Amino acid sequence: MLLTLDLLGICVFAISGGLVAVRNQLDILGVVVLAMATGLGGGVIRDVLIGAVPPPGVEDWRYLAVPALAGLATFAWHPALGRLERVVNVFDAAGLGMFCVAGALKAHEFGLGPVPSAALGMLTGVGGGVIRDLLAGRVPVVLRSGELYAIPALAGAAVAATGVELGLSPEVIVGPAVVLTTGWRLMAIRRGWRAPAPRVVSQD
Amino acid sequence: MLLTLDLLGICVFAISGGLVAVRNQLDILGVVVLAMATGLGGGVIRDVLIGAVPPPGVEDWRYLAVPALAGLATFAWHPALGRLERVVNVFDAAGLGMFCVAGALKAHEFGLGPVPSAALGMLTGVGGGVIRDLLAGRVPVVLRSGELYAIPALAGAAVAATGVELGLSPEVIVGPAVVLTTGWRLMAIRRGWRAPAPRVVSQD
Amino acid sequence: MLLTLDLLGICVFAISGGLVAVRNQLDILGVVVLAMATGLGGGVIRDVLIGAVPPPGVEDWRYLAVPALAGLATFAWHPALGRLERVVNVFDAAGLGMFCVAGALKAHEFGLGPVPSAALGMLTGVGGGVIRDLLAGRVPVVLRSGELYAIPALAGAAVAATGVELGLSPEVIVGPAVVLTTGWRLMAIRRGWRAPAPRVVSQD
Repeated sequence: MLLTLDLLGICVFAISGGLVAVRNQLDILGVVVLAMATGLGGGVIRDVLIGAVPPPGVEDWRYLAVPALAGLATFAWHPALGRLERVVNVFDAAGLGMFCVAGALKAHEFGLGPVPSAALGMLTGVGGGVIRDLLAGRVPVVLRSGELYAIPALAGAAVAATGVELGLSPEVIVGPAVVLTTGWRLMAIRRGWRAPAPRVVSQD
Repeated sequence: MLLTLDLLGICVFAISGGLVAVRNQLDILGVVVLAMATGLGGGVIRDVLIGAVPPPGVEDWRYLAVPALAGLATFAWHPALGRLERVVNVFDAAGLGMFCVAGALKAHEFGLGPVPSAALGMLTGVGGGVIRDLLAGRVPVVLRSGELYAIPALAGAAVAATGVELGLSPEVIVGPAVVLTTGWRLMAIRRGWRAPAPRVVSQD
Repeated sequence: MLLTLDLLGICVFAISGGLVAVRNQLDILGVVVLAMATGLGGGVIRDVLIGAVPPPGVEDWRYLAVPALAGLATFAWHPALGRLERVVNVFDAAGLGMFCVAGALKAHEFGLGPVPSAALGMLTGVGGGVIRDLLAGRVPVVLRSGELYAIPALAGAAVAATGVELGLSPEVIVGPAVVLTTGWRLMAIRRGWRAPAPRVVSQD
């Protein structure tokens, strides 16, 4: 069950990576690699940082096969997938919610306190997209756009990390934390909520 | 005491990351993330490479709070901070000295020889800035500019690594090594010393 | 013997990194760092992912000295080296073959199955070049160009990983696997074989 959810999240993220690769005119290998890096990157960074090596994203062939196939599918059917942007956005918000909550819980399992667990949870959620954008030669969307993406991720991860710290069982926490992240993200897309940007200053 | 110095270095580096983020018109989250990546990046890379995971930069909430707050402060007061460029440069040179010497000593503690310890010390000093520039979408300043930045860092790290290898106590070495790096860096800024660039060749 | 081959591969990759740095007008430190990152990057990433830290590329001074010297040599004699592009290409194909096969065998030694070992072998072969291109501020050639580079690397790594999984001794497998990668890569350069690119679609 958990594995299925995890692989679903990887698959959705991989499609987003594949679409960026197609738009940047990368070749078939580039599409597959970008799909894999986007799907697996966040979890692999988290696992390297907490010492959980080799990460499942490297050791388990299913974690490699799912984003590779998602990348090949994106290469083949990208015009159709591109038109499904709204659907992809919904899945992406769901993937973000699952990743950041699962990341925070795994960091807690490895003995980290609530603040680091929340930070690593957010990193799990946004890390794949950051790697995707670096490989595609652009400033990471999550940093740049003013879109509310990482802040909902941090909120869900913080709720999950605080909850397990207070002794609640993960089963109780996962639901509300995922709903918080995914719901906030979907509302932000729908209503056009944006994160504050720095005041522009004249160069003096 | 050591912790205070370390956090001060992280704070200064974080401000430099936040200023780059503001200049690139990233949003508030981007400013905070770039501040954290710049402040913590060098040490985290070193710790991952020597197997010291989870790194303090991930596990200890103070290491997360300091650059996050520095990023928020940069977001709020960047016009004032930007005018303090000279002061920031001095602190940055001090941070560079502390980071590369501390990095070399930590690598030595983990059993590495003098050459790798010196290399990892330099990496600790410049790694955060490299990550900052990659995330901001520009070629790392340390590679590009001809500015004497990494060479003083390597010199200080090499002095520290050689010293402990010869059996000197860290307390004796830290001072001269930091002064070498920081002083050389400050002189390079003041006098405009530059690293040699390749001869330009016509494309034949 | 194995060490010599490994260092030779690192040297060739380092020269390719140094040449990219020279063409991007980086300074002497940039040339050396890019040479080292290109020569050592693939192996270091693999070692971090399988938990083999500190990696030889960090711990062993010879692994640091060879690409550093190659970088300095490139800085000094880049016009001559640039004219030897064909020779560099042959060496690069040989280095690619050795790296991806050695990477797959090392991953197998650390207990990974055939699919992850093949993937890590490919990553060992192409990782250095990806880091080189990111630091030089361009989309990684291996993703972008349509050149057959990563696919031959994956093929050789897959042959090596499957072979050891089936119980063949590494001595038997290394030869054919390296020849497969290197030969395919050389043929692709010579005949202009290219990887398929996505169909261009009008933005609708």
